[in-house]
Amino acid sequence: MEFSSKLLERAVNEMSQLPGIGKRTALRLVLHMLRQPKEQTLALSEALKVMRNDVKFCKSCHNISDVDLCEICSSLNRNSELICVVEDIRDVMAIENTSSFKGLYHVLGGKISPMDGIGPHDLNIESLVTKVKEGKVKELIFALSSTMEGDTTNFYIYKQIQDYKVYTSTIARGISVGDELEYADEITLGRSIVNRIPFESSLKL
Amino acid sequence: MEFSSKLLERAVNEMSQLPGIGKRTALRLVLHMLRQPKEQTLALSEALKVMRNDVKFCKSCHNISDVDLCEICSSLNRNSELICVVEDIRDVMAIENTSSFKGLYHVLGGKISPMDGIGPHDLNIESLVTKVKEGKVKELIFALSSTMEGDTTNFYIYKQIQDYKVYTSTIARGISVGDELEYADEITLGRSIVNRIPFESSLKL
Repeated sequence: MEFSSKLLERAVNEMSQLPGIGKRTALRLVLHMLRQPKEQTLALSEALKVMRNDVKFCKSCHNISDVDLCEICSSLNRNSELICVVEDIRDVMAIENTSSFKGLYHVLGGKISPMDGIGPHDLNIESLVTKVKEGKVKELIFALSSTMEGDTTNFYIYKQIQDYKVYTSTIARGISVGDELEYADEITLGRSIVNRIPFESSLKL
Repeated sequence: MEFSSKLLERAVNEMSQLPGIGKRTALRLVLHMLRQPKEQTLALSEALKVMRNDVKFCKSCHNISDVDLCEICSSLNRNSELICVVEDIRDVMAIENTSSFKGLYHVLGGKISPMDGIGPHDLNIESLVTKVKEGKVKELIFALSSTMEGDTTNFYIYKQIQDYKVYTSTIARGISVGDELEYADEITLGRSIVNRIPFESSLKL
């Protein structure tokens, strides 16, 4: 691609570093910026800079936060003895949206994946184990995705804490609400039968 | 979407102003930035700011440029009496990539489109007509897309300059190189028959 302006070329090159954005898309986005009022692009530029410079991670749960201890961890209305272990801050957002969980979170920052060169020490596992060892946690809920990497990570953490007094659980796997049985995969359908729940308790949901 | 950080929320909101980027994609991109080295996001932020603040448009052809008169317009190796009229700077880049055009360009900045509220005075038409009136141009090549808006724009410009001594042409419409005839639309196929060229001259291409 031949650019008539070095400034344009540099902006396009930087934009195309982002995942899923190729040179053509980057050019389209940058040309859009040139058509919009200048303030809009300057606001984007500033927001990205400030975000990258000033964003913090909660020292307890490793969620993104503007302060040292995030809102969830510092809330008095939440059960600090119940911890939900998730991969990513997007999982925290997804679970928070359901309004059905009133404990705290622990963000691992990924899954153990030897293929991608991610070992236990690249994740926030040690601080979780420390919390358990200190006896502050009654229940850990594993809410990782059910892939080989997710299962490996669950099991690794489980082995580290099994000698301490903590109850561990994992989120229910089953047929999504509204899904047709005939299209469900065998493993999910099988698990949903094995882990069936009393009909009376389903009425309360 | 509930964010645990105002800085993150602001960055996601600004990113999602871009066309084709929704909140979810914006969040994915911003979280990617947080995983990459800080320098990368700061470079993107700086590139966008500098580009929006300092980019110029060539005073002659209205192409994007870092200087007042763009490289193409100021080149001595190009035929300044032959002007190719295009909608957008992307069209300039596309034609330049073919290396088959050695004249100058004139970027209109869009097409006449009453539906979108774009009239002749929103486009760089006056400066083109002035060039023609000054007798500096021997041939105008219309290279707009062949839509109703493109045809309207061509015709509007044509009416403005028809009393002056200038030859006007339009790019050839026909079957794309490598395309199968059976899949071509009727209008394109019809035009390609009407506007057939001598076989000997096709051998030279």
